[in-house]
Amino acid sequence: MKHLLSLVALLLAVSTSVVAQEKQPLKFVDATALNICGHTLRTDKSPYFRFDCEPYNLNNSYIERYSRYSTGLYVMFRTNSSQVVATWENVPRRAGDNMTAITQLGLDLYIKHDGRWVFCQSGRVSTDPTKSKRTKTIVKNLAEGEKEFMLYLPLWCELKSLEIGVDKNAVIEPIPSPYKYKVLNYGTSITHGASASRPGLTWSARMSRNLGIDFINVGFSGNGKMQREIVPLLCKVECDALLCYCFGNPSAKEIEERVDYFVDELVKAHPGKPIIFIRPLHNELEYFDMVQREKLVHKLSVINRKIAEIKKRHKDVYYLDEPFPHGDDFEGSVDKSHLNDLGFDRVIKTYQPQIAKIFRKYGIK
Amino acid sequence: MKHLLSLVALLLAVSTSVVAQEKQPLKFVDATALNICGHTLRTDKSPYFRFDCEPYNLNNSYIERYSRYSTGLYVMFRTNSSQVVATWENVPRRAGDNMTAITQLGLDLYIKHDGRWVFCQSGRVSTDPTKSKRTKTIVKNLAEGEKEFMLYLPLWCELKSLEIGVDKNAVIEPIPSPYKYKVLNYGTSITHGASASRPGLTWSARMSRNLGIDFINVGFSGNGKMQREIVPLLCKVECDALLCYCFGNPSAKEIEERVDYFVDELVKAHPGKPIIFIRPLHNELEYFDMVQREKLVHKLSVINRKIAEIKKRHKDVYYLDEPFPHGDDFEGSVDKSHLNDLGFDRVIKTYQPQIAKIFRKYGIK
Repeated sequence: MKHLLSLVALLLAVSTSVVAQEKQPLKFVDATALNICGHTLRTDKSPYFRFDCEPYNLNNSYIERYSRYSTGLYVMFRTNSSQVVATWENVPRRAGDNMTAITQLGLDLYIKHDGRWVFCQSGRVSTDPTKSKRTKTIVKNLAEGEKEFMLYLPLWCELKSLEIGVDKNAVIEPIPSPYKYKVLNYGTSITHGASASRPGLTWSARMSRNLGIDFINVGFSGNGKMQREIVPLLCKVECDALLCYCFGNPSAKEIEERVDYFVDELVKAHPGKPIIFIRPLHNELEYFDMVQREKLVHKLSVINRKIAEIKKRHKDVYYLDEPFPHGDDFEGSVDKSHLNDLGFDRVIKTYQPQIAKIFRKYGIK
Repeated sequence: MKHLLSLVALLLAVSTSVVAQEKQPLKFVDATALNICGHTLRTDKSPYFRFDCEPYNLNNSYIERYSRYSTGLYVMFRTNSSQVVATWENVPRRAGDNMTAITQLGLDLYIKHDGRWVFCQSGRVSTDPTKSKRTKTIVKNLAEGEKEFMLYLPLWCELKSLEIGVDKNAVIEPIPSPYKYKVLNYGTSITHGASASRPGLTWSARMSRNLGIDFINVGFSGNGKMQREIVPLLCKVECDALLCYCFGNPSAKEIEERVDYFVDELVKAHPGKPIIFIRPLHNELEYFDMVQREKLVHKLSVINRKIAEIKKRHKDVYYLDEPFPHGDDFEGSVDKSHLNDLGFDRVIKTYQPQIAKIFRKYGIK
């Protein structure tokens, strides 16, 4: 009897393999027929723009370009296909050195498994900027049945098109975002995603999955400086809370000049909602460049003074301030400015419980 | 009095800044005048080759190429310079997509600080393969006094030359390796370093600093398959212990065919020394590709059977086998094959205590 069962199991295994390995003909659907989420503010100009920068006179070519990046966007769909293939094309650009090209130009597929979203596989790319259109099988030989997917889009490029390929006879349909509440997550390159190893490992994406709350990625690499021109955008976005990591990029002088207006306007536009600021993630002791160290010490003193003043007039403003949120062995950074996945993990371990606790006071959970 | 002290402090700070920010003229020394460590077997052919592949008839173009890579090498020196600059040139190659270009082509500087080696700054690169020679200031404005440095070399390229630039009037000298015991760390791309975010964050480099034991990086991306041709090299290397992560690349059939000879020869060449094997780092449950999952299940059963047989005849062979060494949320991988820094951190947290415990039994500590 035991042998018979083993034989049946073996035959089943073999037949599954054969079926699974058979090359299935494909059909492609445009991602716009599915549910593209994570925009700062949707625009008709492109489904892959975070927002339309034109109405804002930003006068900042970086933020203008970043507004067209697919940073933080994700596509929700379900399918009973045995495989997920993607064809995507981006405006050509050369990848930077302190992040993987997957993070900058690639895709990142998550699957709903046992009630949670888990990593399925990444969509690989070339670092050759002339190869800006590609078709890749992200995963194949999936078990039978319908499954839900979340596909994170590239963090550092302008996406021109995206099509999802599935088995010719399969059903593929949009599904709603899994998130009810929305947090505007404004900040610098670290918020933008430097240097997570794939698009689904940003601080925003990980905290969204962990807490079941949509952290919208409004990070602008090198340009999360509380510029006056960006304030009207941040005021217009409908959200339940704001998280601001915006003391890393600006100088102490810029913080001194800008933070009052920045906070006062946000509080006016989002009354009664929590606005959480986070200290620069690095500690002065890790800078062996004494000039940088000195600047950071000075900046921290300015931030502390300004935040103390602001908290007196705004009860819903919070400041999270741990000395070594990314670890005191300094291994959590790739280049002293940007976090690697270990650094993000430690920052999330440090701050996520504090953020969740504040949110719970406001019914955001 | 308090004001006077503040004033003195301010003046001192200002004068330090001015001195530190002044551009210092440089002198360059060839890295060969310092102490280059971490070779599998030093060869006269190049100070940056891990070993000379010629005597071994490897008949494997990958391993032959990797033997010329500077993977796992590090340069030890001390200097009283206010800055550390580097000029380095590699044989041109296009960086891959699942690692940073810093990891593949860049440098990684550590500094001895409060008795431990901590990250100072990375040596940045371009992903443009035509820019294979560059000069970069890695750190500047260092505090006065002599400091010790460890400079990790690129993991995925053949280094043609390396010069270290310091202040013209500074002293720069070689210092000994900080490590007494040597572990031959043989394996696949994961041992090679995929996908640490910089050269100093490989499994080998981190465990070396953590335990004060030199883990020599003998990882061959995609080719850590216990091939018969590589055995004479591994037998020849003088070491105090062996760590083998070599069940990821070979098929179940290759493991079945090769592992007995591999272990028997290593035991003969390194009698009485611990040889630790580690299971494939991934768990079958994280593969949604059912064919891959099935293959891994089968491979694990073969490994378990072979290891049980081997342990009966070799008392110094160990097998470390935790089900989710890189975490059961599957966030520790960039592409399901390779670990990101979070994955490496979890693997180290899981296995380092077990490895250290075995080593202590053999007086390696």
